[in-house]
Amino acid sequence: MNKYSELLEKTIAKITGPDIVAQQAAKRRLDSLTKPLGSLGRLEEIVIRIAGITGEARPVVDKKTIIIMCADNGVAEEGISSCPKSVTAEVTRNFTRGITGVNILSSHAGAEIVPVDIGVEGQLDCCGIVDKKIMRGTRNMAKGPAMTREEALRAIDAGIETVNELKEKGARMFGTGEMGVGNTTTSSAVAAVLTGRQLDSLVGRGAGLSSEGLEHKIEVIRDSILLNKPDADDAVDVLAKVGGLDIAGLAGCYLGAAACRIPIVIDGFIAGVAALVAARIMPDSREFMIASHGSAEPGSKAVLEALGLEPLLMLGLRLGEGTGAALAFHIIDAAFEAYNKMGIFGDANIEQYKPLT
Amino acid sequence: MNKYSELLEKTIAKITGPDIVAQQAAKRRLDSLTKPLGSLGRLEEIVIRIAGITGEARPVVDKKTIIIMCADNGVAEEGISSCPKSVTAEVTRNFTRGITGVNILSSHAGAEIVPVDIGVEGQLDCCGIVDKKIMRGTRNMAKGPAMTREEALRAIDAGIETVNELKEKGARMFGTGEMGVGNTTTSSAVAAVLTGRQLDSLVGRGAGLSSEGLEHKIEVIRDSILLNKPDADDAVDVLAKVGGLDIAGLAGCYLGAAACRIPIVIDGFIAGVAALVAARIMPDSREFMIASHGSAEPGSKAVLEALGLEPLLMLGLRLGEGTGAALAFHIIDAAFEAYNKMGIFGDANIEQYKPLT
Repeated sequence: MNKYSELLEKTIAKITGPDIVAQQAAKRRLDSLTKPLGSLGRLEEIVIRIAGITGEARPVVDKKTIIIMCADNGVAEEGISSCPKSVTAEVTRNFTRGITGVNILSSHAGAEIVPVDIGVEGQLDCCGIVDKKIMRGTRNMAKGPAMTREEALRAIDAGIETVNELKEKGARMFGTGEMGVGNTTTSSAVAAVLTGRQLDSLVGRGAGLSSEGLEHKIEVIRDSILLNKPDADDAVDVLAKVGGLDIAGLAGCYLGAAACRIPIVIDGFIAGVAALVAARIMPDSREFMIASHGSAEPGSKAVLEALGLEPLLMLGLRLGEGTGAALAFHIIDAAFEAYNKMGIFGDANIEQYKPLT
Repeated sequence: MNKYSELLEKTIAKITGPDIVAQQAAKRRLDSLTKPLGSLGRLEEIVIRIAGITGEARPVVDKKTIIIMCADNGVAEEGISSCPKSVTAEVTRNFTRGITGVNILSSHAGAEIVPVDIGVEGQLDCCGIVDKKIMRGTRNMAKGPAMTREEALRAIDAGIETVNELKEKGARMFGTGEMGVGNTTTSSAVAAVLTGRQLDSLVGRGAGLSSEGLEHKIEVIRDSILLNKPDADDAVDVLAKVGGLDIAGLAGCYLGAAACRIPIVIDGFIAGVAALVAARIMPDSREFMIASHGSAEPGSKAVLEALGLEPLLMLGLRLGEGTGAALAFHIIDAAFEAYNKMGIFGDANIEQYKPLT
């Protein structure tokens, strides 16, 4: 079989670097605002980055959508999570009832959420969930590969398709989120293989494991990697053998967003691992990503470092779902408010601040 | 003369610690929300902190006001700033024209701003600015004390009065901000004396000094401290000798807010130094403060460490005015949205997450 699917090949071919001319125009406007040069710090960086992504000096980022990839993980049967497996389907249904963390925080940020069933074990029968189910959860990676390469590629395609469909509906900015019992386990496995770091420095307690549970989780991940021998130079191989459908779907979202030149905000650890997979498939996709927060999961820092991205927020979150992306939208909106509405030197009865000494 | 003014003594006497019962009630509600225990990280900490401040398990923080203390500093004549002194009055006037950074960012956060003339050199003749002018800028601390003790105490009183007046108008949360050419110089001097740290690790480029300018700024601060010999154990003495009217006014705001049991959000470096002055005058006032961001000024970190506070945002801002406080309001609002609107276990067709292993 081919290394990648036809859709993935086409998507990769569309991805190019940032628009330098738009970035320079944004920088000039920022420098004309009535403030010391550069004094809005990372708010200025966000504006320049999004100008480069969209190719517009005055980008509009009004319609924001958080894509939540939901899937079960076969490895949950190894007892690596503090939650029973049924929580995946229950929380996925709750996304349509408006009561989860990401429902509340995205609504507060003026964003919509789109939950996607990319591999929940049960039948959801629930409107408001996009059906892209590849399979009813992955296989148990502690006993063999979680997915075939073809299944992993279909999950990436599902992410690309989701982004393309939402672009047609007018989306101007994406956020990522996920739901899946056991997905800090799969994410830690993928992160360990792709970054080459020690498992002890990457694996955390997820939703709330005990110290014994954490030891066991590390053992299961170590054994799964030894058993399946993923090829660190082939991110799709890593995804298929020790990853998950949610991670694969999100990796597709990053690549799709990059091909559409739409900014995409990374949520926490799991969404960050998916971003790293995307960046390994196509390095320029990194230019279209914005890191929202450093999560409480220890692997979060390692993954953002591997991506070369600095998070906007450090709030010790470990809820997932896209909650960190929703919070970062406020900061991104604030950056554009300042950019579009602050006074300009000349209008403001004020002379440009220039070093006197 | 007395150590403190009568108003300051009365204000200090009113300050007590957090309401533990309200904090416990908030913690119980947080633990009943449909999420892993503690997974909202610092959002949960904010809710508990504000419950303890207000004494209410379900506090309402709807009316937010950023108090911007504006004043000139005599030390500006030593050439320690990249801005001409006239910028203080110009920017203070611009606060009433809606075009400054803090105008835009506070409006976006649903907060109002209240600029206070506590010591601008020129006559402002401008409605929308609260007149609490103590004097037309401080004296040059490089040649003698910036203020008398009485002037510093009057500036602290002006801050307390401002808070009390705004409380009468319904304020439920404060942010702090400042405007004053030369105020990173005075703030660095106060921070050095109060924390005992080396100047080189505290002093930064302010609005945009060159490397030579930075050297000169450090020399001026060192000489001013040697000349005036402030008493590190008496924060008012430090304020008077090497501080500023803006810092003194803000210190009064923190103490006034603590006495009124209203949460108060610290902006950046200068506002942080004022918070440290307040905490040295009355340690319990610290419990009423929330640190918004770690600024690009190197002293910011030292001051927040001395206060024992962790900032919510790390955005490399160095604009002052209250811009960081305005940004933090979004995160605080989001914390209360989640707290008030998320589903409760039992309602959500979901069993409480409990460790399985």
